[in-house]
Amino acid sequence: MKTVLSSKTRTIVLGPDEPFVIIGERINPTNRKKLAEELRRFDFSRVKSDAIAQVKAGAHMLDVNAGIPGADEPGMLKGAVQAVMEVVDAPISIDSSTPEALEAALPAYAGKALVNSVTGEDEVLERLLPLVKKHGAAVIGIANDDTGISNDPHERLRIARKIVERAADHGIPRENVLIDPLCMPIGANHEFGRVTFETMRLVREELGVNMSVGAGNVGFGLPDRPPLTTSFILLGMQVGLTASITNALEPEIYKMILAGDLMLGRDPFGKKWNAHFRKVSAGKAGARPDSQQTSPVTPSSPRA
Amino acid sequence: MKTVLSSKTRTIVLGPDEPFVIIGERINPTNRKKLAEELRRFDFSRVKSDAIAQVKAGAHMLDVNAGIPGADEPGMLKGAVQAVMEVVDAPISIDSSTPEALEAALPAYAGKALVNSVTGEDEVLERLLPLVKKHGAAVIGIANDDTGISNDPHERLRIARKIVERAADHGIPRENVLIDPLCMPIGANHEFGRVTFETMRLVREELGVNMSVGAGNVGFGLPDRPPLTTSFILLGMQVGLTASITNALEPEIYKMILAGDLMLGRDPFGKKWNAHFRKVSAGKAGARPDSQQTSPVTPSSPRA
Repeated sequence: MKTVLSSKTRTIVLGPDEPFVIIGERINPTNRKKLAEELRRFDFSRVKSDAIAQVKAGAHMLDVNAGIPGADEPGMLKGAVQAVMEVVDAPISIDSSTPEALEAALPAYAGKALVNSVTGEDEVLERLLPLVKKHGAAVIGIANDDTGISNDPHERLRIARKIVERAADHGIPRENVLIDPLCMPIGANHEFGRVTFETMRLVREELGVNMSVGAGNVGFGLPDRPPLTTSFILLGMQVGLTASITNALEPEIYKMILAGDLMLGRDPFGKKWNAHFRKVSAGKAGARPDSQQTSPVTPSSPRA
Repeated sequence: MKTVLSSKTRTIVLGPDEPFVIIGERINPTNRKKLAEELRRFDFSRVKSDAIAQVKAGAHMLDVNAGIPGADEPGMLKGAVQAVMEVVDAPISIDSSTPEALEAALPAYAGKALVNSVTGEDEVLERLLPLVKKHGAAVIGIANDDTGISNDPHERLRIARKIVERAADHGIPRENVLIDPLCMPIGANHEFGRVTFETMRLVREELGVNMSVGAGNVGFGLPDRPPLTTSFILLGMQVGLTASITNALEPEIYKMILAGDLMLGRDPFGKKWNAHFRKVSAGKAGARPDSQQTSPVTPSSPRA
């Protein structure tokens, strides 16, 4: 199944045979005091520079969140979406579950947006799905509801199925629903990874829809988090994960996702892999003008 | 299914719920002129230092190969195995398909060895399986035969099944057979990864045996190979790969395998992950005596 998302000038396709989609997580005022202050006074300069930096680093899409308690989320979200559209052509994931904010931001977006997100709660579904339908958007459905987050993959599947079915009732086709199988901090419970991977397997097999997950949480509380995020994404890629809202600015995460795509046959002849290596090598050489070489590609032995 | 391997004083268990097993590939004279020269004159000092370095870097087992065309492989292999046993307690994968070499090395090994490897060729199986049985060893069976390497996962499965059945005919239980699903250079054909992963899925589902693969080849001819090896291993871990003969000296490979184990619930509370981080941080601090700090574990935000 393919999910198509777009900006005015760029189209992104999610699917099991498509390259993995990186949704940059950076534009989010949570724990970012300066960004929050700027958003409050409708200053979107940092939003713009964050957008440019993430796309430059490899993000295919950008998540945009303007949720600050007590502030004018509709106005800030709309402004942030417009600011991002001004500087990059990456499609946007509009990160809000506030109907008023979505009502302000969705009409301002030129393209087919992704709404991030709905849960399986009846009230949330009834409130947000009509908006998703009205604007022809796609939506991320998180596999939890008012009963909380279950550690039973079949329970998460049940909620995912409910979201897909309820979306269909509202005229939203299945390909426009992404499921978030839920990524929890592995440091809190070593079974959290297995639960999520099994949820992915079940969702892929039984619903066949695409999936996106916020991968940055998996290493919460543990040291050296980028490799944890990376390994979680790679393990997910093998069981149906097609996208992730993650830290696009971390070079290791981007590189390992490229490597995963290559291994899964989504980068014929390693064209992207080679191009990335040349870009990084050129960057390194540029950063050290006294360096003697630009990391030439030397033939290596099969055993290396 | 669990496969138990051992040295005189150490036991390693391979299985779907066990930590991934890293088999250090370094002790191999192919493309290593100095090592080859030393082996020829029965000088095992480099074998010993390679053994120590690999175990220090995290290898759980060591592959030992002494295949030099025209040289005394039986004598060199036996000597190399003995040399490794003198300096480390990691179980050994005896890497030869020469009956005379195995006949010399297997009796010299104290523990339950892994023989690397047999193919599905009748002649090879009839020649080597009796030796494996006689010495109570386990064996790696490579999923190809005299018809060559097939790109059809079902054909690889057929050969794997043949090896498992033929081993049983010789009294070798299924848990003592590891299948190598074959890793080919992805730069030559972008479907090679998918073929191998599908083979892993089939072998896991239909035979249930453990698997090991030589992962270093996957990036042959491409730049920046460690992340390619790493991504291949992680993607394999999700579909039944339980061990890999690989470059244990590459810190990124070791670290990402640890991360994968953590994600798959094989490192409760991240004990190994935390210990590795402390070790690496201490090493860095030690290497730079003027450094102000030892990379303290700072609490990080869920979004980092």
